[in-house]
Amino acid sequence: MDTVIGDLTAGGRRTRAAVWTGTGVDLREVAVPDLDIGELLVRVDLATVCGSDLHTVSGRRPAPCPSVLGHEAVGRVVGSGQRVVWGVTVACGRCDRCESGRTAKCRNVRKVGHERYDGSWPLSGGYAQHIVLPAGSCVVPVPEIVPDTVAAPAACATATVMAALEQAGDLDGRRVLICGAGMLGVTATAACAVAGARVWVTDPDPVRMEIAERFGGRPDDGAAVDIAIDFSGSSVAVARCLDRLDVGGVLVLAGSVTPGPAVPLDPEAVVRRWLTVTGVHNYEPRHLEQAVRFLAETVGIYPWDEVVGEPVGLDGLAEALVPPAAGLLRAAVAP
Amino acid sequence: MDTVIGDLTAGGRRTRAAVWTGTGVDLREVAVPDLDIGELLVRVDLATVCGSDLHTVSGRRPAPCPSVLGHEAVGRVVGSGQRVVWGVTVACGRCDRCESGRTAKCRNVRKVGHERYDGSWPLSGGYAQHIVLPAGSCVVPVPEIVPDTVAAPAACATATVMAALEQAGDLDGRRVLICGAGMLGVTATAACAVAGARVWVTDPDPVRMEIAERFGGRPDDGAAVDIAIDFSGSSVAVARCLDRLDVGGVLVLAGSVTPGPAVPLDPEAVVRRWLTVTGVHNYEPRHLEQAVRFLAETVGIYPWDEVVGEPVGLDGLAEALVPPAAGLLRAAVAP
Repeated sequence: MDTVIGDLTAGGRRTRAAVWTGTGVDLREVAVPDLDIGELLVRVDLATVCGSDLHTVSGRRPAPCPSVLGHEAVGRVVGSGQRVVWGVTVACGRCDRCESGRTAKCRNVRKVGHERYDGSWPLSGGYAQHIVLPAGSCVVPVPEIVPDTVAAPAACATATVMAALEQAGDLDGRRVLICGAGMLGVTATAACAVAGARVWVTDPDPVRMEIAERFGGRPDDGAAVDIAIDFSGSSVAVARCLDRLDVGGVLVLAGSVTPGPAVPLDPEAVVRRWLTVTGVHNYEPRHLEQAVRFLAETVGIYPWDEVVGEPVGLDGLAEALVPPAAGLLRAAVAP
Repeated sequence: MDTVIGDLTAGGRRTRAAVWTGTGVDLREVAVPDLDIGELLVRVDLATVCGSDLHTVSGRRPAPCPSVLGHEAVGRVVGSGQRVVWGVTVACGRCDRCESGRTAKCRNVRKVGHERYDGSWPLSGGYAQHIVLPAGSCVVPVPEIVPDTVAAPAACATATVMAALEQAGDLDGRRVLICGAGMLGVTATAACAVAGARVWVTDPDPVRMEIAERFGGRPDDGAAVDIAIDFSGSSVAVARCLDRLDVGGVLVLAGSVTPGPAVPLDPEAVVRRWLTVTGVHNYEPRHLEQAVRFLAETVGIYPWDEVVGEPVGLDGLAEALVPPAAGLLRAAVAP
């Protein structure tokens, strides 16, 4: 249990943060900043390493630098002790996008683990002992039944899957194809299976396919489906998914977050087959709530903890910022 | 008022039908067939000429031949005198598509105005004094307040627009771009305006643009929109619509019913902008009900009757099977 906020804002308290410098990770001991009204200080218990952080570190994704990375984490609010996860996007709540219910696309959006360390929000990431959550952050309580390694991915992988499934529509009794058996694909597999769908999975990696089968999936058999969800981000895979849709089918794109070749779309097929192609990027607060609920409900059903690596300390972060070992879908850091 | 069914099934009663032979229209006087259980005989009061019939006649669309064309019509049920319109698709009600609520894509679908004259359903089209509606037809009563020229398009143009708008989602306060100001585009313009949307319209024909403005539209200004609906069927137009979508935007394709070039779809844009592309072809029974209700509610608001030509008799059908004169969106036939 942490000390109360009064101690912190009085100054003098220090914390440790892993700062990504563009070429490596620099561990810094820094003062905990004074909190503004509406801000929360959270002691990070565990953060998982999302693939997009690997893109940043490998230079495939432009990102603010220096910065504290890490946007999948779980921790406890300093002062109250409340165990929470928090949303990636922090919205202004006032722009047209926010007012139309698309806070993830807020015109003034700030993002956990994506802000400059030398800017107005230095402690923005999960790879630190403490994170400051600005006013307007989406903070969701986490039941104790959900272990840290299972809860941390809620804030990116699980919530994004919830958003994707909302786009997919009713799942009960439907035939679903999941393309890509990383953390998101496996989570979607489990969520679709729990919702009553029959789930086929495709991934070139046989070890990931084995994982997907433990989460309710079966190997793709090439037949027509009602719903396809792509997490691979491959344009070739997206085109293949499109071809697989039966009449009334829905293709949800969630993996295409970097530039890639265009996919040829046949307008006549879209019309005559009543097809839908839709995309999701990040998620809304309701999806984070759904994510936590889903993990709490399935923590006894699926081996979530087995696909997250043994946590390393902040000192080991640099070595954890690589693709996870075979049989794992996430590395973990316990700052 | 027609005589009762008893007279008809007793045999001997004759009717006139305009049979499309593949090269022209052949007027035939034929016996009204005996009705099977569940079938209805309808005296056609008026039929409008849909653009897809023009495609058939010009050879751009393969179609069963010989056949009685015409799938936008209004008439009265022989026997009861009930004034009705009827759906284009007749579904079996038993296949997987029907059971999943997609009767328009029934695996055993038969279509009004699309069946062989020398087959099991000779009087399938509206270009005849009588049409036989098989068991399972969708038949919707039409209030007397709606004139024949306004009611007839319900069964194709208006109902398809209702299906397209269902895919588009909530319209109130949204920015909508309608591409193509034919009968469907103009109908969609009016329906969106009535639903509280701001509606921009694009069509290369200045006369059609004038019509669209009388139905609540304004000329396209090139700005971003929340919803785009394409009725043009042009792949170039579809690609342009896609580019115009704001975050969360929805593109509904309804015009692409013939083969055309593929449209390049950028998966990253779909994901990052939460875009949706969806298609509709024909419609479900609920959309025909909505169509009749919409026309009844707006018959005093919009000049529906002014965009349909003066009806000709069956003898004049051949001359009516051409694109409508400037200022009109439909030719009409009163058999």
